Amino acid sequence: MAAVIRITDPADPRLDDFRDLTTADRRPDRPGGKGLVIAEGVVVVRRLLASPYPVRSLLGVQRRIAELDAEVDSSVPAYVTSADVMAEVVGFHLNRGVLAVADKVKPWSLDDLAAKKRLAVLEGVGDHENLGALFRNVAALGFGGVVLGPGCSDPLYRRSVRVSMGHVLAVPFTTVTEWPGALKHLRSKGFQVLALTPRADSVPLNKVATDGPVAVLLGSEGPGLTDEAIDAADHAVRIPMTGGVDSLNVATAGAVAFYAIGTG
Amino acid sequence: MAAVIRITDPADPRLDDFRDLTTADRRPDRPGGKGLVIAEGVVVVRRLLASPYPVRSLLGVQRRIAELDAEVDSSVPAYVTSADVMAEVVGFHLNRGVLAVADKVKPWSLDDLAAKKRLAVLEGVGDHENLGALFRNVAALGFGGVVLGPGCSDPLYRRSVRVSMGHVLAVPFTTVTEWPGALKHLRSKGFQVLALTPRADSVPLNKVATDGPVAVLLGSEGPGLTDEAIDAADHAVRIPMTGGVDSLNVATAGAVAFYAIGTG
Repeated sequence: MAAVIRITDPADPRLDDFRDLTTADRRPDRPGGKGLVIAEGVVVVRRLLASPYPVRSLLGVQRRIAELDAEVDSSVPAYVTSADVMAEVVGFHLNRGVLAVADKVKPWSLDDLAAKKRLAVLEGVGDHENLGALFRNVAALGFGGVVLGPGCSDPLYRRSVRVSMGHVLAVPFTTVTEWPGALKHLRSKGFQVLALTPRADSVPLNKVATDGPVAVLLGSEGPGLTDEAIDAADHAVRIPMTGGVDSLNVATAGAVAFYAIGTG
Repeated sequence: MAAVIRITDPADPRLDDFRDLTTADRRPDRPGGKGLVIAEGVVVVRRLLASPYPVRSLLGVQRRIAELDAEVDSSVPAYVTSADVMAEVVGFHLNRGVLAVADKVKPWSLDDLAAKKRLAVLEGVGDHENLGALFRNVAALGFGGVVLGPGCSDPLYRRSVRVSMGHVLAVPFTTVTEWPGALKHLRSKGFQVLALTPRADSVPLNKVATDGPVAVLLGSEGPGLTDEAIDAADHAVRIPMTGGVDSLNVATAGAVAFYAIGTG
Protein backbone atom coordinates (compact mmCIF):
# COMPACT_ATOMS: atom_id res chain seq x y z
CA MET A 1 0.00 0.00 0.00
CA ALA A 2 1.39 3.33 -1.09
CA ALA A 3 1.49 6.37 1.20
CA VAL A 4 -1.26 8.29 -0.64
CA ILE A 5 -1.00 12.08 -0.35
CA ARG A 6 -3.50 14.44 -1.95
CA ILE A 7 -2.03 17.57 -3.54
CA THR A 8 -3.92 20.47 -5.08
CA ASP A 9 -1.18 23.08 -5.52
CA PRO A 10 0.91 22.57 -8.68
CA ALA A 11 3.73 24.56 -7.04
CA ASP A 12 4.04 22.02 -4.18
CA PRO A 13 7.78 21.28 -3.88
CA ARG A 14 7.10 17.58 -3.28
CA LEU A 15 6.31 17.40 -7.02
CA ASP A 16 9.66 18.80 -8.12
CA ASP A 17 10.88 15.49 -9.54
CA PHE A 18 8.01 15.66 -12.03
CA ARG A 19 8.39 19.29 -13.00
CA ASP A 20 8.86 20.44 -16.63
CA LEU A 21 9.67 17.00 -17.96
CA THR A 22 10.06 18.09 -21.57
CA THR A 23 13.11 20.15 -20.66
CA ALA A 24 14.39 18.72 -17.36
CA ASP A 25 14.42 15.22 -18.72
CA ARG A 26 15.63 15.87 -22.22
CA ARG A 27 18.89 14.10 -21.51
CA PRO A 28 18.98 12.76 -17.97
CA ASP A 29 22.53 11.52 -18.52
CA ARG A 30 23.81 15.03 -19.12
CA PRO A 31 24.85 17.58 -16.49
CA GLY A 32 21.74 19.57 -15.62
CA GLY A 33 19.48 16.62 -16.24
CA LYS A 34 18.17 15.15 -13.03
CA GLY A 35 19.47 11.66 -13.65
CA LEU A 36 16.11 10.16 -12.78
CA VAL A 37 14.25 7.31 -14.42
CA ILE A 38 10.73 8.30 -15.42
CA ALA A 39 7.93 5.86 -16.15
CA GLU A 40 4.60 6.81 -17.73
CA GLY A 41 1.37 4.84 -17.59
CA VAL A 42 0.21 1.93 -15.46
CA VAL A 43 1.99 -0.78 -17.46
CA VAL A 44 5.37 0.92 -17.46
CA VAL A 45 5.09 2.10 -13.83
CA ARG A 46 4.31 -1.49 -12.88
CA ARG A 47 7.52 -2.62 -14.59
CA LEU A 48 9.46 0.13 -12.81
CA LEU A 49 8.08 -1.07 -9.47
CA ALA A 50 9.30 -4.60 -10.29
CA SER A 51 12.75 -3.37 -11.43
CA PRO A 52 15.98 -2.77 -9.50
CA TYR A 53 15.51 1.01 -9.79
CA PRO A 54 14.44 2.43 -6.38
CA VAL A 55 11.16 4.31 -6.83
CA ARG A 56 11.10 7.77 -5.23
CA SER A 57 7.43 8.65 -5.74
CA LEU A 58 4.35 8.36 -7.95
CA LEU A 59 2.12 11.11 -9.30
CA GLY A 60 -1.26 10.32 -10.74
CA VAL A 61 -4.98 10.70 -10.86
CA GLN A 62 -6.97 8.80 -8.24
CA ARG A 63 -8.01 5.97 -10.53
CA ARG A 64 -4.51 5.15 -11.76
CA ILE A 65 -2.92 5.31 -8.32
CA ALA A 66 -5.64 2.95 -7.08
CA GLU A 67 -4.75 0.44 -9.81
CA LEU A 68 -1.13 0.38 -8.65
CA ASP A 69 -1.66 0.73 -4.91
CA ALA A 70 -1.12 -2.92 -3.95
CA GLU A 71 2.26 -2.99 -5.68
CA VAL A 72 3.70 0.14 -4.04
CA ASP A 73 5.71 -0.06 -0.84
CA SER A 74 4.34 2.00 2.08
CA SER A 75 7.55 4.03 2.22
CA VAL A 76 6.88 5.42 -1.27
CA PRO A 77 4.69 8.54 -1.51
CA ALA A 78 1.94 8.41 -4.13
CA TYR A 79 0.75 11.93 -4.89
CA VAL A 80 -2.84 12.07 -6.05
CA THR A 81 -4.04 15.10 -7.94
CA SER A 82 -6.17 16.14 -10.93
CA ALA A 83 -5.25 15.71 -14.58
CA ASP A 84 -5.06 19.51 -14.87
CA VAL A 85 -2.60 19.88 -11.99
CA MET A 86 -0.52 17.03 -13.43
CA ALA A 87 -0.41 18.75 -16.82
CA GLU A 88 0.67 22.01 -15.19
CA VAL A 89 3.46 20.31 -13.26
CA VAL A 90 4.94 18.20 -16.05
CA GLY A 91 4.36 20.79 -18.77
CA PHE A 92 2.18 18.80 -21.14
CA HIS A 93 -1.03 16.81 -21.09
CA LEU A 94 -0.51 13.19 -20.09
CA ASN A 95 -2.85 10.62 -21.56
CA ARG A 96 -1.76 7.90 -19.24
CA GLY A 97 -2.70 9.47 -15.91
CA VAL A 98 0.24 8.28 -13.85
CA LEU A 99 4.00 8.80 -13.61
CA ALA A 100 6.68 7.41 -11.36
CA VAL A 101 10.28 8.50 -10.81
CA ALA A 102 13.15 6.35 -9.63
CA ASP A 103 16.83 6.78 -9.00
CA LYS A 104 19.34 5.24 -11.33
CA VAL A 105 21.40 2.33 -10.04
CA LYS A 106 25.09 1.53 -10.21
CA PRO A 107 25.75 0.53 -13.82
CA TRP A 108 26.56 -3.04 -14.72
CA SER A 109 30.11 -3.76 -15.85
CA LEU A 110 31.14 -5.40 -19.08
CA ASP A 111 32.13 -8.46 -17.06
CA ASP A 112 28.65 -8.58 -15.47
CA LEU A 113 27.29 -8.71 -19.00
CA ALA A 114 29.86 -11.28 -20.12
CA ALA A 115 28.32 -13.75 -17.65
CA LYS A 116 25.22 -13.93 -19.94
CA LYS A 117 24.88 -16.33 -22.86
CA ARG A 118 23.36 -13.88 -25.31
CA LEU A 119 24.10 -10.18 -25.73
CA ALA A 120 23.20 -7.40 -28.11
CA VAL A 121 26.03 -4.94 -28.77
CA LEU A 122 25.08 -1.61 -30.32
CA GLU A 123 27.19 0.92 -32.24
CA GLY A 124 25.83 4.37 -33.09
CA VAL A 125 22.20 3.72 -32.16
CA GLY A 126 21.34 7.27 -31.16
CA ASP A 127 17.61 7.23 -31.84
CA HIS A 128 15.69 6.83 -28.57
CA GLU A 129 12.78 5.03 -30.20
CA ASN A 130 15.01 2.48 -31.91
CA LEU A 131 16.88 2.02 -28.65
CA GLY A 132 13.67 1.44 -26.68
CA ALA A 133 12.37 -0.98 -29.30
CA LEU A 134 15.68 -2.88 -29.24
CA PHE A 135 15.48 -3.34 -25.48
CA ARG A 136 11.91 -4.56 -25.78
CA ASN A 137 13.03 -7.12 -28.38
CA VAL A 138 16.02 -8.17 -26.25
CA ALA A 139 13.68 -8.79 -23.32
CA ALA A 140 11.00 -10.56 -25.36
CA LEU A 141 13.39 -12.89 -27.13
CA GLY A 142 15.43 -13.89 -24.10
CA PHE A 143 18.72 -12.12 -24.68
CA GLY A 144 20.61 -11.37 -21.47
CA GLY A 145 21.77 -7.78 -21.83
CA VAL A 146 22.93 -4.91 -24.00
CA VAL A 147 26.38 -3.39 -24.48
CA LEU A 148 26.23 0.22 -25.68
CA GLY A 149 29.18 1.25 -27.84
CA PRO A 150 30.06 4.71 -29.17
CA GLY A 151 27.25 6.93 -30.43
CA CYS A 152 24.46 5.29 -28.46
CA SER A 153 21.98 7.33 -26.43
CA ASP A 154 20.85 6.77 -22.87
CA PRO A 155 18.32 3.92 -22.85
CA LEU A 156 16.81 5.31 -19.63
CA TYR A 157 15.66 8.46 -21.36
CA ARG A 158 11.91 8.86 -20.91
CA ARG A 159 10.91 8.23 -24.53
CA SER A 160 13.13 5.17 -24.72
CA VAL A 161 11.59 3.78 -21.53
CA ARG A 162 8.13 4.34 -22.99
CA VAL A 163 8.85 2.75 -26.40
CA SER A 164 10.42 -0.23 -24.66
CA MET A 165 7.10 -0.64 -22.79
CA GLY A 166 9.26 -0.48 -19.65
CA HIS A 167 11.25 -3.57 -20.57
CA VAL A 168 14.45 -1.54 -20.63
CA LEU A 169 14.08 -1.51 -16.83
CA ALA A 170 14.52 -5.29 -16.70
CA VAL A 171 17.53 -5.58 -19.00
CA PRO A 172 21.11 -5.21 -17.71
CA PHE A 173 23.21 -2.90 -19.87
CA THR A 174 26.57 -1.21 -19.86
CA THR A 175 28.23 1.59 -21.80
CA VAL A 176 31.73 0.91 -23.10
CA THR A 177 34.34 3.37 -24.28
CA GLU A 178 37.06 0.97 -25.42
CA TRP A 179 36.08 0.41 -29.03
CA PRO A 180 36.37 -1.99 -30.67
CA GLY A 181 38.31 -3.18 -27.60
CA ALA A 182 35.08 -4.23 -25.89
CA LEU A 183 34.40 -6.65 -28.76
CA LYS A 184 37.86 -8.16 -28.34
CA HIS A 185 37.22 -8.42 -24.61
CA LEU A 186 33.96 -10.31 -25.20
CA ARG A 187 35.76 -12.68 -27.58
CA SER A 188 38.43 -13.27 -24.95
CA LYS A 189 35.59 -14.26 -22.59
CA GLY A 190 34.40 -16.92 -25.04
CA PHE A 191 31.81 -14.94 -27.02
CA GLN A 192 31.31 -15.41 -30.71
CA VAL A 193 30.66 -11.87 -32.01
CA LEU A 194 28.37 -11.73 -35.05
CA ALA A 195 28.22 -8.41 -36.90
CA LEU A 196 24.87 -7.94 -38.62
CA THR A 197 25.48 -6.11 -41.90
CA PRO A 198 24.19 -6.24 -45.48
CA ARG A 199 27.85 -6.13 -46.67
CA ALA A 200 28.55 -8.36 -49.68
CA ASP A 201 30.96 -10.67 -47.86
CA SER A 202 28.51 -11.41 -45.04
CA VAL A 203 27.04 -14.89 -44.68
CA PRO A 204 23.36 -15.69 -44.12
CA LEU A 205 22.51 -15.78 -40.43
CA ASN A 206 21.39 -19.41 -40.54
CA LYS A 207 24.77 -20.58 -41.89
CA VAL A 208 26.61 -19.76 -38.67
CA ALA A 209 26.79 -22.20 -35.77
CA THR A 210 25.64 -20.49 -32.59
CA ASP A 211 26.76 -22.86 -29.85
CA GLY A 212 28.28 -21.13 -26.85
CA PRO A 213 27.87 -17.48 -25.90
CA VAL A 214 26.91 -15.17 -28.77
CA ALA A 215 26.99 -11.37 -29.06
CA VAL A 216 25.06 -9.78 -31.92
CA LEU A 217 26.58 -6.51 -33.11
CA LEU A 218 24.08 -4.02 -34.58
CA GLY A 219 24.71 -0.61 -36.13
CA SER A 220 22.60 2.43 -36.82
CA GLU A 221 20.21 2.37 -39.71
CA GLY A 222 21.83 4.92 -41.96
CA PRO A 223 25.59 4.41 -41.98
CA GLY A 224 25.53 0.92 -40.46
CA LEU A 225 28.44 -0.58 -38.56
CA THR A 226 31.92 0.85 -38.94
CA ASP A 227 34.49 -1.29 -40.71
CA GLU A 228 36.58 -1.45 -37.56
CA ALA A 229 33.67 -2.94 -35.62
CA ILE A 230 32.92 -5.49 -38.35
CA ASP A 231 36.62 -6.39 -38.54
CA ALA A 232 36.69 -7.00 -34.80
CA ALA A 233 33.81 -9.50 -35.02
CA ASP A 234 34.12 -13.24 -35.68
CA HIS A 235 31.72 -13.20 -38.61
CA ALA A 236 29.78 -10.70 -40.70
CA VAL A 237 26.25 -12.10 -41.00
CA ARG A 238 23.13 -10.93 -42.81
CA ILE A 239 19.41 -11.47 -42.92
CA PRO A 240 18.63 -12.61 -46.47
CA MET A 241 16.55 -9.85 -48.09
CA THR A 242 14.67 -9.27 -51.30
CA GLY A 243 16.39 -7.25 -54.03
CA GLY A 244 15.85 -3.52 -53.73
CA VAL A 245 15.14 -3.42 -50.03
CA ASP A 246 18.36 -2.29 -48.45
CA SER A 247 17.71 -3.04 -44.82
CA LEU A 248 15.26 -3.44 -42.00
CA ASN A 249 14.89 -0.99 -39.16
CA VAL A 250 17.70 -1.71 -36.67
CA ALA A 251 15.34 -2.89 -33.90
CA THR A 252 13.49 -5.15 -36.33
CA ALA A 253 16.74 -6.59 -37.68
CA GLY A 254 17.77 -7.21 -34.08
CA ALA A 255 14.53 -9.08 -33.36
CA VAL A 256 15.00 -11.32 -36.39
CA ALA A 257 18.60 -12.05 -35.40
CA PHE A 258 17.71 -12.73 -31.74
CA TYR A 259 14.98 -15.14 -32.87
CA ALA A 260 17.22 -16.86 -35.43
CA ILE A 261 20.08 -17.31 -32.94
CA GLY A 262 17.82 -18.37 -30.11
CA THR A 263 18.57 -18.47 -26.42
CA GLY A 264 20.84 -21.54 -26.68
CA MET B 1 14.26 14.57 -67.58
CA ALA B 2 11.47 16.28 -65.70
CA ALA B 3 9.63 19.29 -67.05
CA VAL B 4 11.13 21.77 -64.55
CA ILE B 5 8.91 24.79 -63.80
CA ARG B 6 9.95 27.54 -61.40
CA ILE B 7 7.22 28.87 -59.12
CA THR B 8 7.46 31.76 -56.68
CA ASP B 9 3.81 32.33 -55.74
CA PRO B 10 2.55 29.97 -53.03
CA ALA B 11 -1.02 30.57 -54.27
CA ASP B 12 -0.20 29.16 -57.73
CA PRO B 13 -3.03 26.71 -58.53
CA ARG B 14 -0.59 24.25 -60.08
CA LEU B 15 0.49 23.45 -56.50
CA ASP B 16 -3.03 22.56 -55.33
CA ASP B 17 -2.23 18.86 -54.98
CA PHE B 18 0.33 19.77 -52.32
CA ARG B 19 -1.78 22.25 -50.39
CA ASP B 20 -2.49 21.91 -46.63
CA LEU B 21 -1.31 18.33 -46.41
CA THR B 22 -1.93 18.00 -42.67
CA THR B 23 -5.65 18.32 -43.21
CA ALA B 24 -6.30 17.43 -46.84
CA ASP B 25 -4.37 14.22 -46.56
CA ARG B 26 -5.40 13.14 -43.10
CA ARG B 27 -7.35 10.22 -44.49
CA PRO B 28 -7.08 10.10 -48.26
CA ASP B 29 -9.42 7.13 -48.33
CA ARG B 30 -12.26 9.18 -46.86
CA PRO B 31 -14.69 11.40 -48.75
CA GLY B 32 -13.15 14.85 -48.88
CA GLY B 33 -9.64 13.45 -48.92
CA LYS B 34 -8.01 13.84 -52.27
CA GLY B 35 -7.25 10.18 -52.78
CA LEU B 36 -3.69 10.94 -53.79
CA VAL B 37 -0.50 9.12 -52.89
CA ILE B 38 2.09 11.46 -51.36
CA ALA B 39 5.79 10.71 -51.13
CA GLU B 40 8.26 12.76 -49.07
CA GLY B 41 12.02 12.86 -49.51
CA VAL B 42 14.35 11.71 -52.26
CA VAL B 43 14.40 8.04 -51.26
CA VAL B 44 10.63 7.68 -51.05
CA VAL B 45 9.96 9.80 -54.17
CA ARG B 46 12.41 7.57 -56.03
CA ARG B 47 10.38 4.51 -54.97
CA LEU B 48 7.17 6.24 -56.05
CA LEU B 49 8.69 6.92 -59.48
CA ALA B 50 9.53 3.20 -59.78
CA SER B 51 6.05 2.10 -58.62
CA PRO B 52 2.83 1.45 -60.55
CA TYR B 53 1.31 4.69 -59.18
CA PRO B 54 1.23 7.34 -61.96
CA VAL B 55 3.09 10.41 -60.73
CA ARG B 56 1.23 13.70 -61.30
CA SER B 57 3.95 16.16 -60.25
CA LEU B 58 6.90 16.88 -57.99
CA LEU B 59 7.49 19.89 -55.75
CA GLY B 60 10.91 20.58 -54.32
CA VAL B 61 13.89 22.78 -53.79
CA GLN B 62 16.34 22.99 -56.68
CA ARG B 63 18.89 20.59 -55.20
CA ARG B 64 16.42 17.77 -54.52
CA ILE B 65 14.70 18.06 -57.90
CA ALA B 66 18.13 17.90 -59.54
CA GLU B 67 18.89 14.63 -57.70
CA LEU B 68 15.74 13.05 -59.12
CA ASP B 69 15.70 14.65 -62.54
CA ALA B 70 17.06 11.70 -64.54
CA GLU B 71 14.34 9.42 -63.16
CA VAL B 72 11.38 11.66 -63.98
CA ASP B 73 9.51 11.37 -67.26
CA SER B 74 9.38 14.55 -69.35
CA SER B 75 5.58 14.56 -69.17
CA VAL B 76 5.72 15.07 -65.39
CA PRO B 77 6.00 18.65 -64.13
CA ALA B 78 8.62 19.24 -61.43
CA TYR B 79 7.88 22.48 -59.62
CA VAL B 80 10.97 24.13 -58.19
CA THR B 81 10.57 26.67 -55.44
CA SER B 82 12.10 27.78 -52.13
CA ALA B 83 11.81 25.93 -48.82
CA ASP B 84 9.71 28.82 -47.50
CA VAL B 85 7.20 28.66 -50.34
CA MET B 86 7.00 24.88 -49.93
CA ALA B 87 6.28 25.26 -46.21
CA GLU B 88 3.57 27.81 -46.94
CA VAL B 89 1.90 25.54 -49.49
CA VAL B 90 1.96 22.28 -47.53
CA GLY B 91 1.33 23.92 -44.15
CA PHE B 92 4.41 22.76 -42.26
CA HIS B 93 8.17 22.79 -42.63
CA LEU B 94 9.51 19.89 -44.63
CA ASN B 95 12.94 18.60 -43.75
CA ARG B 96 13.24 16.49 -46.82
CA GLY B 97 12.98 19.17 -49.49
CA VAL B 98 10.91 17.29 -52.04
CA LEU B 99 7.43 15.84 -52.42
CA ALA B 100 5.67 13.96 -55.19
CA VAL B 101 1.99 13.16 -55.68
CA ALA B 102 0.56 10.26 -57.64
CA ASP B 103 -2.86 8.90 -58.41
CA LYS B 104 -4.02 5.70 -56.82
CA VAL B 105 -4.39 2.65 -59.06
CA LYS B 106 -7.12 0.06 -59.41
CA PRO B 107 -6.88 -2.10 -56.29
CA TRP B 108 -5.65 -5.66 -56.48
CA SER B 109 -8.23 -8.38 -55.90
CA LEU B 110 -8.01 -11.15 -53.35
CA ASP B 111 -7.46 -13.57 -56.22
CA ASP B 112 -4.54 -11.45 -57.49
CA LEU B 113 -3.04 -11.83 -54.04
CA ALA B 114 -3.83 -15.54 -53.89
CA ALA B 115 -1.44 -16.06 -56.83
CA LYS B 116 1.48 -15.27 -54.46
CA LYS B 117 3.24 -17.87 -52.31
CA ARG B 118 3.49 -15.77 -49.16
CA LEU B 119 0.98 -13.28 -47.78
CA ALA B 120 0.52 -11.23 -44.64
CA VAL B 121 -3.11 -10.88 -43.55
CA LEU B 122 -3.89 -8.12 -41.05
CA GLU B 123 -6.82 -7.68 -38.68
CA GLY B 124 -7.37 -4.44 -36.78
CA VAL B 125 -4.01 -2.84 -37.57
CA GLY B 126 -5.18 0.76 -37.44
CA ASP B 127 -1.90 2.44 -36.50
CA HIS B 128 -0.33 4.02 -39.59
CA GLU B 129 3.23 3.60 -38.31
CA ASN B 130 2.76 -0.09 -37.59
CA LEU B 131 1.14 -0.51 -40.98
CA GLY B 132 4.02 1.23 -42.75
CA ALA B 133 6.59 -0.82 -40.83
CA LEU B 134 4.72 -4.03 -41.69
CA PHE B 135 4.82 -3.24 -45.40
CA ARG B 136 8.53 -2.49 -45.17
CA ASN B 137 9.09 -5.87 -43.51
CA VAL B 138 6.90 -7.66 -46.07
CA ALA B 139 8.97 -6.13 -48.86
CA ALA B 140 12.35 -6.77 -47.20
CA LEU B 141 11.64 -10.39 -46.36
CA GLY B 142 10.17 -11.39 -49.70
CA PHE B 143 6.49 -11.80 -48.90
CA GLY B 144 4.23 -11.26 -51.92
CA GLY B 145 1.45 -9.05 -50.66
CA VAL B 146 -0.85 -7.91 -47.86
CA VAL B 147 -4.55 -8.60 -47.24
CA LEU B 148 -6.18 -5.92 -45.06
CA GLY B 149 -9.05 -7.20 -42.96
CA PRO B 150 -11.46 -5.23 -40.77
CA GLY B 151 -10.10 -2.35 -38.71
CA CYS B 152 -7.03 -1.68 -40.84
CA SER B 153 -6.12 1.81 -42.00
CA ASP B 154 -5.17 2.93 -45.47
CA PRO B 155 -1.53 1.92 -46.09
CA LEU B 156 -1.23 4.72 -48.65
CA TYR B 157 -1.74 7.38 -46.01
CA ARG B 158 1.23 9.76 -46.04
CA ARG B 159 2.71 8.73 -42.69
CA SER B 160 2.41 5.07 -43.54
CA VAL B 161 4.18 5.64 -46.86
CA ARG B 162 6.96 7.46 -45.03
CA VAL B 163 7.44 4.85 -42.27
CA SER B 164 7.49 2.10 -44.90
CA MET B 165 10.38 4.01 -46.55
CA GLY B 166 8.20 3.91 -49.66
CA HIS B 167 8.17 0.12 -49.82
CA VAL B 168 4.39 0.12 -49.44
CA LEU B 169 4.39 1.39 -53.02
CA ALA B 170 5.94 -1.85 -54.27
CA VAL B 171 3.71 -4.29 -52.39
CA PRO B 172 0.34 -5.46 -53.80
CA PHE B 173 -2.46 -5.27 -51.26
CA THR B 174 -6.20 -5.61 -51.06
CA THR B 175 -8.90 -4.75 -48.55
CA VAL B 176 -11.43 -7.46 -47.78
CA THR B 177 -14.84 -7.13 -46.17
CA GLU B 178 -15.83 -10.80 -45.98
CA TRP B 179 -14.43 -11.76 -42.60
CA PRO B 180 -13.32 -14.32 -41.72
CA GLY B 181 -14.61 -15.42 -45.14
CA ALA B 182 -11.45 -14.13 -46.81
CA LEU B 183 -9.39 -16.55 -44.71
CA LYS B 184 -11.61 -19.43 -45.81
CA HIS B 185 -11.22 -18.26 -49.39
CA LEU B 186 -7.42 -18.29 -49.10
CA ARG B 187 -7.55 -21.80 -47.64
CA SER B 188 -9.75 -22.92 -50.53
CA LYS B 189 -7.01 -21.60 -52.84
CA GLY B 190 -4.43 -23.84 -51.15
CA PHE B 191 -3.07 -21.46 -48.51
CA GLN B 192 -2.10 -22.62 -45.07
CA VAL B 193 -3.27 -19.79 -42.77
CA LEU B 194 -1.13 -19.35 -39.64
CA ALA B 195 -2.56 -17.10 -36.92
CA LEU B 196 0.20 -15.48 -34.87
CA THR B 197 -0.99 -15.23 -31.27
CA PRO B 198 0.45 -15.69 -27.78
CA ARG B 199 -2.64 -17.80 -26.88
CA ALA B 200 -1.86 -20.80 -24.69
CA ASP B 201 -2.87 -23.41 -27.28
CA SER B 202 -0.61 -21.96 -30.00
CA VAL B 203 2.39 -23.95 -31.21
CA PRO B 204 5.90 -22.54 -31.69
CA LEU B 205 6.39 -21.15 -35.16
CA ASN B 206 9.20 -23.56 -35.99
CA LYS B 207 7.02 -26.62 -35.30
CA VAL B 208 4.77 -25.97 -38.29
CA ALA B 209 5.64 -27.25 -41.78
CA THR B 210 5.48 -24.37 -44.25
CA ASP B 211 5.52 -26.10 -47.61
CA GLY B 212 3.11 -24.63 -50.12
CA PRO B 213 1.51 -21.20 -49.97
CA VAL B 214 1.39 -19.63 -46.50
CA ALA B 215 -0.62 -16.67 -45.17
CA VAL B 216 0.46 -15.18 -41.82
CA LEU B 217 -2.43 -13.64 -39.90
CA LEU B 218 -1.45 -10.76 -37.58
CA GLY B 219 -3.61 -8.77 -35.18
CA SER B 220 -3.32 -5.40 -33.50
CA GLU B 221 -1.03 -5.04 -30.55
CA GLY B 222 -3.54 -4.44 -27.80
CA PRO B 223 -6.49 -6.80 -28.24
CA GLY B 224 -4.76 -9.17 -30.67
CA LEU B 225 -6.62 -11.33 -33.15
CA THR B 226 -10.30 -12.06 -32.66
CA ASP B 227 -11.27 -15.62 -31.77
CA GLU B 228 -13.21 -15.92 -35.00
CA ALA B 229 -10.13 -15.10 -37.04
CA ILE B 230 -7.96 -17.55 -35.09
CA ASP B 231 -10.64 -20.22 -35.45
CA ALA B 232 -10.70 -19.70 -39.22
CA ALA B 233 -6.92 -20.32 -39.47
CA ASP B 234 -5.22 -23.70 -39.91
CA HIS B 235 -2.96 -23.25 -36.91
CA ALA B 236 -2.40 -20.83 -34.05
CA VAL B 237 1.34 -20.23 -33.88
CA ARG B 238 3.56 -18.20 -31.59
CA ILE B 239 7.04 -16.77 -31.34
CA PRO B 240 8.57 -18.28 -28.21
CA MET B 241 9.07 -15.45 -25.72
CA THR B 242 10.61 -14.92 -22.33
CA GLY B 243 8.30 -14.94 -19.30
CA GLY B 244 6.84 -11.57 -18.50
CA VAL B 245 7.10 -10.08 -21.95
CA ASP B 246 3.64 -10.34 -23.39
CA SER B 247 4.30 -9.58 -27.02
CA LEU B 248 6.39 -7.87 -29.61
CA ASN B 249 5.23 -4.90 -31.62
CA VAL B 250 3.00 -6.22 -34.43
CA ALA B 251 5.39 -5.18 -37.21
CA THR B 252 8.33 -6.76 -35.38
CA ALA B 253 6.39 -9.96 -34.75
CA GLY B 254 5.54 -9.98 -38.45
CA ALA B 255 9.22 -9.64 -39.41
CA VAL B 256 10.20 -12.55 -37.18
CA ALA B 257 7.42 -14.70 -38.62
CA PHE B 258 8.23 -13.78 -42.23
CA TYR B 259 11.89 -14.65 -41.63
CA ALA B 260 11.05 -17.91 -39.85
CA ILE B 261 8.64 -19.04 -42.56
CA GLY B 262 10.90 -17.94 -45.41
CA THR B 263 10.02 -17.35 -49.01
CA GLY B 264 9.65 -21.07 -49.82
